[in-house]
Amino acid sequence: MTHFKEVALQHASRLVNHGPTVLVTSAHGGARNVMAAAWSMPVEFTPPRIAIVIDKKTYTRELITASGGFGVCLPGMALAALTHAVGSESGRTVDKFAHYGLAPRTGPVLGLPLLEEGCAAWLECRLIREPHTEDAYDTCFAEIVAAAADERVFQAGHWHFNDGNTELQTIHHLGGGNFVRPGGMFYAGDAAMARPQSGPA
Amino acid sequence: MTHFKEVALQHASRLVNHGPTVLVTSAHGGARNVMAAAWSMPVEFTPPRIAIVIDKKTYTRELITASGGFGVCLPGMALAALTHAVGSESGRTVDKFAHYGLAPRTGPVLGLPLLEEGCAAWLECRLIREPHTEDAYDTCFAEIVAAAADERVFQAGHWHFNDGNTELQTIHHLGGGNFVRPGGMFYAGDAAMARPQSGPA
Repeated sequence: MTHFKEVALQHASRLVNHGPTVLVTSAHGGARNVMAAAWSMPVEFTPPRIAIVIDKKTYTRELITASGGFGVCLPGMALAALTHAVGSESGRTVDKFAHYGLAPRTGPVLGLPLLEEGCAAWLECRLIREPHTEDAYDTCFAEIVAAAADERVFQAGHWHFNDGNTELQTIHHLGGGNFVRPGGMFYAGDAAMARPQSGPA
Repeated sequence: MTHFKEVALQHASRLVNHGPTVLVTSAHGGARNVMAAAWSMPVEFTPPRIAIVIDKKTYTRELITASGGFGVCLPGMALAALTHAVGSESGRTVDKFAHYGLAPRTGPVLGLPLLEEGCAAWLECRLIREPHTEDAYDTCFAEIVAAAADERVFQAGHWHFNDGNTELQTIHHLGGGNFVRPGGMFYAGDAAMARPQSGPA
């Protein structure tokens, strides 16, 4: 049974706002692939858009350019080792989904392979062709056209990280195979807290 | 006494690899400003380059375009409320450094104002002019030309988050003033862990 629920597109940027490492999924003409990416960010709320760095030498980039879309899946703690593994080998010679026993669902808008088991959320993204930035910075821009998240960790447009859902918490790559997960959620929204005692200068 | 030590440029991307929310500092012709940005990412290791989203309507963008550079400072937990506050008002009418009692140091390469007290690290960045992406996605590309970090939390090219340095730990914005800090650092680098028992398919 899936715990994934649709995420409204105006909340989609919140899924990647805090910098999680993601799995990028792609498919074209019967081939498919999954790789890890630590470098992504939202660039716009409405329409929801992201930027993600995908090396031009990767098989993923080839499939994305051919199909015009890609999936962004947020692995939970449980998939940390897998994330490191799929980021360390190429899908040109092996179907990593089959190799690692991953059973993707089919994306609702673009038909891309998307991972739910062990993941906190996914985004289905339509590539916005920007040949110069793709070439100069390996940076691909895309519009998020569908999103969903596991309701045990993301609900009503907000993350809910707690001691009961550590396996589903997002992972954040520090480099060299070291990761952190979110810890110590706190609210810092009261701007008055930051004001000096002496008042405005 | 400062605990900041120079970070080798080949390690600079690690400072922002895990998705921290940052403070963007800027200065031009006697004016200066600081704002918050949740959307940034590395795009290249060598030369170290980042991309960051800075709304074209902000005063910061105006100063950056005029001066050709900006600072990226990583606030620690202690500056979370400040981060939310400076992200919620414009520097056109107030010098936020003076208003919040911030005493920036001068950047070694570009002379930009950089925050150390309460911060985990900073990067001094030279803008790479990309008019199209700046306009279409508010995305600014830049080369990191200098970097430093507080040795109590980043040493020898690696983050060291532990119970003794929570105040210096990076903060990651979830939206709406809610943040998380890094928790539960773990190693997932052994690819073999992710392989199914049955071996390669």
